[in-house]
Amino acid sequence: MTTADTDINDAHREKMAKIKAVKDRIYASKTKEKGLLIVHTGTGKGKSTAAFGLVMRTLGHGLKVGVVQFVKGRRETGERQILEKFPDLVTVKVMGEGFTWETQDRERDIAAAKAAWDEAVAMMAAPDLHLLLLDELNIVLRKDYLSIDNVVDGLLAKRADLHVVVTGRNAKPELIEAADLVTEMTLVKHPFRDGVKAQLGIEF
Amino acid sequence: MTTADTDINDAHREKMAKIKAVKDRIYASKTKEKGLLIVHTGTGKGKSTAAFGLVMRTLGHGLKVGVVQFVKGRRETGERQILEKFPDLVTVKVMGEGFTWETQDRERDIAAAKAAWDEAVAMMAAPDLHLLLLDELNIVLRKDYLSIDNVVDGLLAKRADLHVVVTGRNAKPELIEAADLVTEMTLVKHPFRDGVKAQLGIEF
Repeated sequence: MTTADTDINDAHREKMAKIKAVKDRIYASKTKEKGLLIVHTGTGKGKSTAAFGLVMRTLGHGLKVGVVQFVKGRRETGERQILEKFPDLVTVKVMGEGFTWETQDRERDIAAAKAAWDEAVAMMAAPDLHLLLLDELNIVLRKDYLSIDNVVDGLLAKRADLHVVVTGRNAKPELIEAADLVTEMTLVKHPFRDGVKAQLGIEF
Repeated sequence: MTTADTDINDAHREKMAKIKAVKDRIYASKTKEKGLLIVHTGTGKGKSTAAFGLVMRTLGHGLKVGVVQFVKGRRETGERQILEKFPDLVTVKVMGEGFTWETQDRERDIAAAKAAWDEAVAMMAAPDLHLLLLDELNIVLRKDYLSIDNVVDGLLAKRADLHVVVTGRNAKPELIEAADLVTEMTLVKHPFRDGVKAQLGIEF
């Protein structure tokens, strides 16, 4: 090792020691435990996938999870197969009847959204749930199939230690305002444009 | 139902039928199967969590997954516990030795990054892997612990049907250029600022 290398390494060590001191101080100041209202929105990929990651992480701790799927897609076979391995910990309700352009029936879509929200409210009342995923709730809110005021009131009335994750593009401002943690997934580059189809393990 | 309601519903049905025709035409044109190079970057949350969601989705299909973790964090207990349930399908290599401000040893960090990349190259050569997660690779690339040219060359030489996911903030432009699918996770709102600590099932 040359003298220059030694200098670089020493400078690095000193800088990192300072950073560690700051980080430790910050972590020590974070003491609150709180059930979070989390929103994943934006037009990019990963909104539902990251929520599903939180679901799996929670299951890894042996804690209970509820999932209400507001829009039934065609692509959740991989997720469903994993969730079925944890029948004692997971309750899944698929309430939507397909994409709006598949059902082509607005009345039925509204009825399905209302039934799904009723399920969500019932799950929020369960005393032992650690995480509740309201998948694609933003989609039905954007279409005004559910009252945003009603939904935000319901979410704010949740048990203090329950985490709720809401996904879907175009989250309404009222929901973002009410949320604790909001992440926007932004599309930088997408292979779909190049004729690549939806693939096993990636999209479904 | 009033006449106005009937009109709204009919208009909805007609509009949705048109959208479906367009969607069906688009889907029919997407015929390529291709192993993707996927990048999750940005300063928001969900980069590794969404990648972990892809891992679990792939496991749901009974397909093999490799994970190389370039920076060893403290917070993956939930994920590790789930992955351990699939010993025949998952290979995990945790190569990093902790955050740079924890190790405070640049030489050791560089050696760990190189060993992790060697693991990644070996996994890319495995014929039966469906998905390879290179978690926090962007972090060590940003610090120039690995040569970006060398890594991009290695990733572009991967098996044509293997999906590779690279995570970490500050993805280098060379990697974004090489990637098929890039999503940026953007922080809109974070509870950490309000003194809420990292919590079970959410951060770890």
